[in-house]
Amino acid sequence: MEQINFRIATIDDLAAVVGMLADDALGSVRESPDDLGPYRAAFAEIEGDPRQELLVADYEGAVVGTAQLSYLPGLAHRGAERAQIESVRVGRAVRGTGLGTRLIEECVRRARERGCGLVQLTSDKSRVDAHRFYDRLGFEATHVGYKLKLTP
Amino acid sequence: MEQINFRIATIDDLAAVVGMLADDALGSVRESPDDLGPYRAAFAEIEGDPRQELLVADYEGAVVGTAQLSYLPGLAHRGAERAQIESVRVGRAVRGTGLGTRLIEECVRRARERGCGLVQLTSDKSRVDAHRFYDRLGFEATHVGYKLKLTP
Repeated sequence: MEQINFRIATIDDLAAVVGMLADDALGSVRESPDDLGPYRAAFAEIEGDPRQELLVADYEGAVVGTAQLSYLPGLAHRGAERAQIESVRVGRAVRGTGLGTRLIEECVRRARERGCGLVQLTSDKSRVDAHRFYDRLGFEATHVGYKLKLTP
Repeated sequence: MEQINFRIATIDDLAAVVGMLADDALGSVRESPDDLGPYRAAFAEIEGDPRQELLVADYEGAVVGTAQLSYLPGLAHRGAERAQIESVRVGRAVRGTGLGTRLIEECVRRARERGCGLVQLTSDKSRVDAHRFYDRLGFEATHVGYKLKLTP
């Protein structure tokens, strides 16, 4: 796994990224990888926003991991910009190889390079393995994450 | 408290908003309300970004509450935009009047009007009163919130 290349996703990566979002206990019930239409619109929004980065881990031309970085301006912490990580996925074929660690480290590296004061993320309470993973990477589970679903 | 007006903050509200961020058990140790310089720069970033809204609750010309809304594009949940609430504060003088509820309801109203599929926020584990408040408002504590502080 030495030849992993982390790069910003292009529209050509979209099907692979959506496939990874769907290939997951929680994602399988809420994603529709056979209909890329809504994802194309969202991809365009991400690509057009200088505070969003959709990252992919590329291994010999195949997308094997993904994460989205959002840079949030804010007044708190003396006006420090914070980086938020969402939608982290590692492909089934490469789990256990350390790719997840390298992916998060790449996110943190980008946040640091940009001068962010904080990196934050939330993880579903059911993802116990993910919690151990973030603990190991130095993240602190200091917050409770609340969600409110809106129905159209 | 009927005459509360929720509006987008202007630079004239900055000192009042920073004062509220600092007037708090956690905020008092990390904010510097006597030096607005770093906050002015962050305010300009927020004001210039169409995906950020710094809200204030205005009562007869005085700022008595604040919250920041960030609209996050993303692929997950079939490309649904999500609204994130950060830096919620209610002034000491008006606590217990229901203003907090109205402030969060205003955030949810804006998110719904924009077509967001989800509203999310995190709250420090130590803020037990805040947790009861969000539970009552229909939010679900489904996630663990992780933070990693970056030192320059």
